[in-house]
Parts: sequence; structure tokens; C-alpha cells
Amino acid sequence: MTRLKACVLGATGMVGQQFVRILAGHPDFELVLLTASERSVGLQYQNSTDWVVSNKIPKEFKEMIVTNTQTEKLVENEIDLVFCALPSGIAEELEIDIATAGIPVFSNTSAHRMKPDVPILIPEINPDHLKLIETQQFTDGFIVTNSNCSTSGLVFGLKPLMPFGLNDVVVTTYQAVSGAGRNGVASMDILGNVVPFIPDEEAKMEVETRAILGKLDDGSIRPADFRINASCARVPVMNGHLESVVVQLDDDVSTDDVIDAFETFSGEPQSLNLPTAPKTPIVVHQEADRPQPLRDLSIEGGDLGMAVKVGRIRKKDGRVNFFLLVHNTIRGAAGASVLNAEYALAKGYLNPRTEVI
Amino acid sequence: MTRLKACVLGATGMVGQQFVRILAGHPDFELVLLTASERSVGLQYQNSTDWVVSNKIPKEFKEMIVTNTQTEKLVENEIDLVFCALPSGIAEELEIDIATAGIPVFSNTSAHRMKPDVPILIPEINPDHLKLIETQQFTDGFIVTNSNCSTSGLVFGLKPLMPFGLNDVVVTTYQAVSGAGRNGVASMDILGNVVPFIPDEEAKMEVETRAILGKLDDGSIRPADFRINASCARVPVMNGHLESVVVQLDDDVSTDDVIDAFETFSGEPQSLNLPTAPKTPIVVHQEADRPQPLRDLSIEGGDLGMAVKVGRIRKKDGRVNFFLLVHNTIRGAAGASVLNAEYALAKGYLNPRTEVI
Amino acid sequence: MTRLKACVLGATGMVGQQFVRILAGHPDFELVLLTASERSVGLQYQNSTDWVVSNKIPKEFKEMIVTNTQTEKLVENEIDLVFCALPSGIAEELEIDIATAGIPVFSNTSAHRMKPDVPILIPEINPDHLKLIETQQFTDGFIVTNSNCSTSGLVFGLKPLMPFGLNDVVVTTYQAVSGAGRNGVASMDILGNVVPFIPDEEAKMEVETRAILGKLDDGSIRPADFRINASCARVPVMNGHLESVVVQLDDDVSTDDVIDAFETFSGEPQSLNLPTAPKTPIVVHQEADRPQPLRDLSIEGGDLGMAVKVGRIRKKDGRVNFFLLVHNTIRGAAGASVLNAEYALAKGYLNPRTEVI
Amino acid sequence: MTRLKACVLGATGMVGQQFVRILAGHPDFELVLLTASERSVGLQYQNSTDWVVSNKIPKEFKEMIVTNTQTEKLVENEIDLVFCALPSGIAEELEIDIATAGIPVFSNTSAHRMKPDVPILIPEINPDHLKLIETQQFTDGFIVTNSNCSTSGLVFGLKPLMPFGLNDVVVTTYQAVSGAGRNGVASMDILGNVVPFIPDEEAKMEVETRAILGKLDDGSIRPADFRINASCARVPVMNGHLESVVVQLDDDVSTDDVIDAFETFSGEPQSLNLPTAPKTPIVVHQEADRPQPLRDLSIEGGDLGMAVKVGRIRKKDGRVNFFLLVHNTIRGAAGASVLNAEYALAKGYLNPRTEVI
Repeated sequence: MTRLKACVLGATGMVGQQFVRILAGHPDFELVLLTASERSVGLQYQNSTDWVVSNKIPKEFKEMIVTNTQTEKLVENEIDLVFCALPSGIAEELEIDIATAGIPVFSNTSAHRMKPDVPILIPEINPDHLKLIETQQFTDGFIVTNSNCSTSGLVFGLKPLMPFGLNDVVVTTYQAVSGAGRNGVASMDILGNVVPFIPDEEAKMEVETRAILGKLDDGSIRPADFRINASCARVPVMNGHLESVVVQLDDDVSTDDVIDAFETFSGEPQSLNLPTAPKTPIVVHQEADRPQPLRDLSIEGGDLGMAVKVGRIRKKDGRVNFFLLVHNTIRGAAGASVLNAEYALAKGYLNPRTEVI
Repeated sequence: MTRLKACVLGATGMVGQQFVRILAGHPDFELVLLTASERSVGLQYQNSTDWVVSNKIPKEFKEMIVTNTQTEKLVENEIDLVFCALPSGIAEELEIDIATAGIPVFSNTSAHRMKPDVPILIPEINPDHLKLIETQQFTDGFIVTNSNCSTSGLVFGLKPLMPFGLNDVVVTTYQAVSGAGRNGVASMDILGNVVPFIPDEEAKMEVETRAILGKLDDGSIRPADFRINASCARVPVMNGHLESVVVQLDDDVSTDDVIDAFETFSGEPQSLNLPTAPKTPIVVHQEADRPQPLRDLSIEGGDLGMAVKVGRIRKKDGRVNFFLLVHNTIRGAAGASVLNAEYALAKGYLNPRTEVI
Repeated sequence: MTRLKACVLGATGMVGQQFVRILAGHPDFELVLLTASERSVGLQYQNSTDWVVSNKIPKEFKEMIVTNTQTEKLVENEIDLVFCALPSGIAEELEIDIATAGIPVFSNTSAHRMKPDVPILIPEINPDHLKLIETQQFTDGFIVTNSNCSTSGLVFGLKPLMPFGLNDVVVTTYQAVSGAGRNGVASMDILGNVVPFIPDEEAKMEVETRAILGKLDDGSIRPADFRINASCARVPVMNGHLESVVVQLDDDVSTDDVIDAFETFSGEPQSLNLPTAPKTPIVVHQEADRPQPLRDLSIEGGDLGMAVKVGRIRKKDGRVNFFLLVHNTIRGAAGASVLNAEYALAKGYLNPRTEVI
Repeated sequence: MTRLKACVLGATGMVGQQFVRILAGHPDFELVLLTASERSVGLQYQNSTDWVVSNKIPKEFKEMIVTNTQTEKLVENEIDLVFCALPSGIAEELEIDIATAGIPVFSNTSAHRMKPDVPILIPEINPDHLKLIETQQFTDGFIVTNSNCSTSGLVFGLKPLMPFGLNDVVVTTYQAVSGAGRNGVASMDILGNVVPFIPDEEAKMEVETRAILGKLDDGSIRPADFRINASCARVPVMNGHLESVVVQLDDDVSTDDVIDAFETFSGEPQSLNLPTAPKTPIVVHQEADRPQPLRDLSIEGGDLGMAVKVGRIRKKDGRVNFFLLVHNTIRGAAGASVLNAEYALAKGYLNPRTEVI
């Protein structure tokens, strides 16, 4: 099969780099265009970005010339789908423009996440929400978003517990500095410190979590109706958001019931064997003091950092407690978006432009 | 007035050092004896300890000879009161032995905290609990403990809210490495990492908090009856435990009500003007991103690190959220114990041994 | 005596904050004007800066209104002397303009440091260089600079050794993130890392050190003629530049000779008892593993962070090795500049403008 | 070919773990025995060690039962060669005992490094030194050591420059905490700090470097005769020793000459294509601010962390400066030892015991 032609918008930022890393050698998508802001345009990719997400820039992209972030460039280059790693402000109008031009947009920005017809898709969790795009105003294009990085971990901790009657969630985060972008956190603010505030993050977690776990009903999402309370803080960790979760369930479950629910959890990306899908979406740690960001992100092995890690599952006075760990720039950003595109392809929503013509 | 003769048991550890620092020049207590384990006995204090709690060892203690940790040494030296910074295992029998010998013990260990006749005293919070010592088996001596370090902060966040009908508490901690002692956390475990487990800490917080906020009734403590759920983690911070607190109150209070309750909170140590008491036991931060361990422990100024800092007070969906910060080796350990002794002195429970004879 | 009216240019940056902290309650200089860039103009100082250099903004400056950085503002306000904490680019023309207007400038910027008639003054080291200002083009004003932060420590390690015949210096630095300014180092670059490059730093150390230790001869500086080789790296430390120094001396000195040279070193700021001068400009550490940035910067006590700490003095195969530690934003920046002004005042170079008229 | 039976002594420590990781699936050596101290004996390997060197313990070793560290166990199990990761004190007699029993020892300890008949072997640097073992007192066994971790990097920076006439070396280190072992550095000592002292490290670097770069002459090593001066400090970095090197050469070389010497450097492990040998022993970084421990250790890719990284090569006033980076527990410890064994095998010094009999 011919691969679809993909473009990464905002390829020089950190999430942009993760897109490039993950799309290198992708079986379905061929990354043929990288865009960035003015000062990078015309440069080789290797000279436009300070690569930090792995040892080396994948060879095939080193000398690719960075172009403008403009819809006409996408059309010119017959791009079949777009991954967006732009800042929200810039992305808002542009994504609509691109979708209007008939190009599907898989976006990591929050610009359109709260629109009633834009799905916040996590194919293991709410695959049916993808149908929302059929209600969008565009002819051929559409916009699919992935969730905020801390939300992307939390929903994996909650979804398997919904059959037990989830009625209250208190979540508290320990978030890595990479979540704020390449230069988002100054070292003077975080060395040996914890900053108990991340702008908008708590509201995002509370709203997105209920939306993702909500029901698609008559063409719109009815948010899940449990209570949820989020507290977010930044810690001096490079990658990996750790979250402490306390849930109140209707059923009187045992710790083993919870472990079992996590370990047996699986979704369509697994049954469809999508390229970026982890074999086991939730990995349960048995050790007393895990998961830890430094040790358990495990990009090694088969999961590319897409599995969510859970541990310290314990029951106390009627509530269930656990810690979870999510790779914020992979499962929480670029990897999530690529998986969404893979799922859309599997569901028949993506086609080569040449076939369209 | 003649100062009472004090001894620090376990003076070479980190909490022991804090005792020495705080007792230097104390108006009521004269620190005349320092004890430590065998290998330090006979050495000058400055050669027996790797001083880390401030710039320099107070001059008067530099050349003091360290002695054995034995009750007879205390009797020989006519010690009037003892501050205990020993490990729990060693402290258990010894503290009973010392109290039996007629010497009051102010202990930072958890050895006897859970005994029904031993108060976990925080004079701003539960001053009446001190009366429990009258039910102890000893003739002249007694044992008073202070709480676990993370508990010592939490109760300041909860006590002022009790009039509003406290019925549920979820607390999540970001704890400093100094809480584990001088060599308690290896750098390989915590550099760039978070460890979501501290042995026994969660149970301690849950049990001690309810005990401290409980009622002394007919000679015993009836624990407060709200629900409480604690999750504890270690972060790469040197000093200062940060805690995220979510409470459910019976009353429908506003954020301003909560701020007001914190700011107007005061206790007996303040009205008695005790030497180690902070003027304002709870300091409310108005900035969006405070308190932070690196910036707000403030040993500078008048409070010696004894004030608890509170910030990000917000109301969400019927619950009140806030972050609090406590200096774990001062308000959470040595400073707490010294304040307890000051309060016991003010209440007439401490007398010079020479008067006893 | 009436205090001279002082202004801090660029008062909202980190060095600007240190100026404000050090000048609070200064016996000779009354800080009456704070300037900053456009977006801060018209705001209260406390609302224009994210204060990080101590617990709290000194009370008297909290509500001072920040003004434009313009020479006419200085004239209007009858400013007697100016401390400059601006970026070099902005400072270059402005400092000349201010000095031309008759106002002495004590500058922390590198803008004019390399001019033949501008002294890089460290009053303990090269007090006679102050005379250079008499050769400047200005009528009443003049420009005095202090050295680069890492140089300010090194010269204290070298000056006392010059009588032994200093002929070669190899210095290697471990520099704190605060040296790059408030947002100069992104956390993603330095958490758990060392960055072996600081733009222009090595050349500055090599050139400035020889200039400061050079001779004023016939109205110009003849640089000292030893070899010097600097290697500079950034480490994840908040404050305090540590430097490893290896020197080759002509004389065959013992370790004790070196210790003695350091301990007995003293200068005019000490004999004049200048307000910001440390009693002991060089503090020698005897412990095997000191000085350390975390433990030995010691703003506590009498020295305000102005003393340079030296330790691990050892002799190996004909060379002398030692480590030194300097507080980069105090002795290496704001404190250095204030001491320069105090020295200029003592030498009769500063006068109230009202007297001038 | 049948693989030789190997044993790791002290397999539960961090260097022991690296041995296990590197030997997993090794083409020449089959790791069949793991030893540790008493408290681990009889346990499965996975229950005896807190694995930190990668994501997971290689499957084949998880359930291997840990045995005593005793020579008779080695003989019983027909071990063909031993890798020693024990503490020096324990290793001293034991290694002699094992070699006496006819078993070759590849040791990471310093116990016998300074013996005149024990080579400190780095096959790219001093392959001929292996011959020294022929002068050892043992019949079939022998002892080969690898160098101290910081030395193992330095010699790669110096060897290619020897043809230019190396006459003086000043080296200053930024060493990772893992170099001190699993619990060697307490977090309270290194968070936000630099410790300018590592016991014995400077002397080891100075002596070992000259020995390794010395000549084997008439059955003994004549140390290289350049001057060398080492200063060592610990920094808050997990893995990777960074070193600043300043060398004085006889020849007047250009920066390009030096780069060329590094890039073209290759040794016998490369020509023999030994399994653990990096393709390029020295990797030259062109970027202004590299190599960095966080970014350039690169266990990814083909080199397993065995290549030494060099950067910021510059010439100043007749001297050559550069920074180098070495993975301290791989090229500086376990990997070095495994490569030594591979080289000894290639040179015919290793034979299966069954053939011996």
C-alpha cells in the first residue's frame, strides 16, 4: 500500500520532534513536509531545531528543508493528513483553514478541544467519539484532537473502573518540565523546588476527563457524571507525569478486582494491532514504590512509551487509591495523535488525495 | 530565672542538629548535654557530626563532649528535661526508663505516639491534650510527643476549618528528602525522579491527624470522626513538605471565609508569647503559584520556620482545595518538640530538679 | 551625613533585585529611583518583579513606582549615582549618556569593561585602578565597572599568590544557573545535566583577570603577564560559582604558605571598614570536601555573601591546586558594584549633586 | 562454538547489574553464575537486587538463584572466567584465590591495579600490556583489571595526541553519582550542589593514566612521562563523567589536527570486531555546547555506551582544550571488563575448562 503523505506543523518544538521521531519509518504515513515559524523556514531541519527527544535526528529528516506553516504549502505538496504541534493561538484559525481545504487535521493543541463537534479521541477509551467528525462543517477535511497530557494518563486509570460505578475522583499531579515545552520552565523556578500551579491545567483535566469518558448520544457528547477534583504541580523531573488518584466507587471491590480490571483492559488499537498501539495499554507494577518517572517510562521495549503505568493500588476506608504514570510528550501528545490517525485510517476516514481526485 | 538543664538525645543526626540550633541561646532551657551513639562518644560535638542545618555550629556547642545515651548520665548531670531525636527502635524502652527516673521527655520519635496516655501535642491545635500526661504511670517524669512531620503541617490546614463541619479530607504530599534523615534517600533514587512511597507515612498521617484533632474525653482521646485519605511521595527537594489538600465541609463556605479562618487563626503559644512560637501560625500566600518549598520556608524573619504556609485556596464543585507547606525538620520535628516543652513549662509541668529535691 | 541619592537601572531583573536588597538601609546611599523596561513602568515595584533573591522585598521598596530608564529621569530626580543592571546592549550608549550628564555610573554590565579608560574595579585587589576615571572624557560623571561573575572569584584566589611569582593559571568552573539571569537557563537543559559551554565566558575570564591584576602605568593598564586558560560549564546549582584552580608559581611554596597568604589577605575596604566589605575577604575551609555551593555561600553572618571561600588547597608535582567559591550575583555582581561605589565615596569621587550646584 | 561459562561476582550492585545487562545474550560468554553477599544467597536474582540500569532484568536471569562468593562454587560450576564487581576490600584476597584455582579474573576493583604484574587493560589503548599476565604467579588463572571510571575516559582523550608530544595534562572532572555506587551519595549532599572531593580519585587518575599510556618494557610498565594534574568533583548527574582537559603538546598542531586525530583513532577491538567494541571509539561533537551527560551518553544505537564523546576542541595560547564524556558504569566499569575478556579470548588467553582438563 502506498503510504499517505503527512506533514508536521510546528516540527521544531519538542512535541514536533516527538512527531518526527515517531513517524520515522511509519508503515502508513510518510512524513514529507515539516513546517515551522519564519526564522526556520528555508533551513535544513537539523539546523532549525535543537533536537532533544532522542540521541539523534532520524537520518531521513536531517536535511529536509523546513517550510512555512501555510495551507497552500500543504495543498501544493498534496498532503493527505496533518499533525499539528503548534501553539494554540496560532493553531485556532489555521486548523479550520486546513480542514476546509479538505485535509484531515490531527491536533495536539487545545484550540478546538472544547468544540461540541470535535472529538478528544483516545482510541482505547472512546473510539466511538470519532464519529463526531461526521457532524463537522467540512467537506473532506476534519479535526480530531487528543487530550491534554495529564488527562491522557488519568482516563486510563478511570475507564476500567467505570463498570464498578465511578462516582468521585480526586487527582493530584507531579508533572514533568517537558510538559511546558522546550523553554517553558526556567531552571531557577524548579531546581530543588515544586511549583503548585500550572495555568489552566486543573480545569482541563476536570473537563476533558468527563468529556472523554462521556457518551456520544444523538450526535453530541454527554459528559460522564462523576465528580472530579484536580490539583496540579510541576516537579523537577524531565519526562513523565505521575498522578495520585483517589476514587470512590459504588461497588465494594477488592484490590484484586482493581488490579484485574487494569490488567485485562484492552481496546480497539490492540485488536486492530495498530502500529503505535502498546500491546498492553495499562502496565501494573507490583513493587511497593513504583511507578517512578525516572525508571518506568520505558521507551525501550515494545511500547514506545504509549503504555500507562499503574501501581500502589490500595483500598482505604472505602476508597481506591493508586498512582499512575504517563509519558507526557508521547502518550500525552505526539504518540496520541499518531495513534488517532492510525485509528481513523483503520476506520476508513483517511484516503490518499490522489484517490480523492 | 534559672534556665532548666536540657539534654538532646541523638544530637548528631539531622533532627538532633535542629534541636541544637534552636536551643542555642534559648531563654528557658540550657542545653548542657549532648548524647549520641558509641562511635561519637568522647568526641567534641564538632568532630562527631557533619553539620548541615545552617552555616555553622553555634559556638557554645562546638567543643562540648558527646556522651552516651544512658539514663544514668542524665541523672548524674541533673538534667531537667530531655529532647529525643533517636531512632524509634532505640527510643522505645529508653524513653520509659528516663521518664521513670523522673525526667520529662519531649520526643520526636513515633515510639509512643500511639499509646492512649501519650499526647501528640501541638500547642496551637490541641493544648488540652497535654493533660493526658497526668494519667501516665510515671511519678515525676512524663512523655510528650510531637507528630509526624507531614501531619504537623496538615493539622494547621484543617483545624481552622473544623467549625465549618469537616467531613472528608484527601491529602497528597510532595515530601523533601531531609524527612528521611541525613542519609535516608540515595541520590540515585531521587535525582530527577519522584518516589510514590514512604513507608508507614500514609497511615501515620491518617491516624495522627484524627488523634490530634480529636477530643480529650474522660482521660482519653476520641479521634475526630472525619474521613481522611493520604497519599505520600518523595520529591527532589531538600527541605519542606508541600501538601495538596481537598476537604469537604458541611457548611457552604466561600474562599474568603476560608482565607479569613486561616489568617485569624491563633493559639495559646501566641497568646503566651512562647519563645519558639511564630507570631502568625498560618501565613496565607495570595500569589497564584505559592507556597513553594524553595522560596517560602523562610527561616529568615521572625518565625524560625515554625509558621505553616498556605496558598492556592480555591473552591470547586463544593469542595475546598489548597496547598500547604511545612518545614519538616523544624515545625515537623525539633521546633515542634521545643515548643511543646515551652508550653509544658508555661503550664507548670516543668520544674528544676534541684527544686524537686 | 545626608545619604547620596541612588538609582538602580534595570531593577526588576535578578541582579537588579540584589541591588535593591543590598541597598535597603544602606548608610551612604539612599535608593530613591527604580527603573525598568516599558511594561513595568508605572507599576509598583512589588507588582513589576518576581522577587527571588530573598524571602521578601524590603518594605520601603514594595510600593515604589517603577520609572523609565532615561537619563532625564535621573536628572529630574537629582540622582547622585547610578547602579546599572541592564543588559549590555541597552547599557552601552545609555551609560555614556548618563556619565555625560554628570552622574557617576557603577555598572555591572560588560559594555565598557574593555575600554582602556574604564576600570574593572575590585577594591581589595586593584584599588589604584580607580584613578583611571580621571582620564575619562566626562566632566563630572564617570563609569566604573565590576568584573564578570566568575572572574570576581578567581582574582581573590590569585592576588595573594602573586608575590610567589604567578606564571600559569588553569581554571575550570562549575557555574550556577543564576549567572545566566532569571530565565537564562531552561530547566530542560540543566536538570541532571552539565552544559560545557557559556558564551564568551572563557574569554572574559582570561582577559579580565589579567587586566584586574595588571599594573596602572602612565594612565593605562598593563595586563599581568601570566598565562591563563579557562574552561567554563554550567551545573544544576542555583547560586554560587565553584572554580577549580591550578597554578604554577616561581617560588617553591608549601601548602601552609598558601593558606597563610589567603588567610592574611586584606585590602582597603577592610581597613576603611566599608559597609559592604566582608571582614575576611577570603575564608579558608579546612574540611576535605569544602567549599560547596549549597553549604558555604553563607549570606548569614556578617559577610552578606561578599567573602570568597577557598578550600582543598594542595600541592602536586610543583603546582598548587585549590577550589574556590564565589556568590555570583553578590560578590560577582550587585555587591561588587555597591562596594565600588563605597570605595569611590571614601576616595572623594562622589558628591551630592546639590553640592555640585 | 561453545560459549565460555562466566560468573559475575557481586552481581547485585550497580556495576554487577551492568555486567548482567551486557552479558545477556553475549556470543562468547554464557553467564551461568551470580554471586552476592550472604543476605542475597538463595534468593532469585530478581528478588535480591533493586534493578536500576535499564527497564527490566533480562528474562534469563530473573529467576537464577544467587550463590555465595566462594572459589569452590566457581570450581563446582566449572566456571571458565570471572567478572568481579566486588568492593575492593573483599576482592583483594579472593581474586588471588580464584586465579590460583586456575580461573581468569577480569576485575573492576582497584585491589590489584597497582601491582607491577597486573595490567590495567584498555584494548584500544594499551593492548600489549595484556602480556603482563604471563609474568603473574598463577598457573592457569590470571588477573586483568580495567581502569578507574574517570581514567577510562581520559586515556581516550590523550592517546591520539601522544604522537604530537604530550607533555602536560590538567584534567578537571564533573562526575556522576552512579560512580559512587548504588547508595554512595546521599541526596542531601548533592541536590543542587557540587562536592569538590572524591576520595583517592585524583591520585588514581594521575597514576593509572600514566601507567596505561606507559610502555611495556622488559616485562614491566614504564609509566608515560608527561605531567598530569587532576581535580575531581561530584555533580548532580545520574550517569556520565564529563571531563575538561587542557594539554600542552610539543608540536604546534591546529584544532583540525586534533579533531582528525580523534576521528581517525581506532584500535584492535575495532579491527577484531569484538562484540562489545564500539565502531567508533571516539565520537567528536561539532556543536558548541556538547557533549552533555544528559544527551550524549547514547546507549541507544550501536555503541552500548562504550564510545567516548569529545567536543569543544579549541586551541588557546599554545594549549589544546576539550571536554570529554565517558559512561562511567559501562566504558568505565562493566563494559570495559567485558571488552577485556573478549580481547583476551581473541588473543588465545581464554579456554574452556573442559578443554583444560
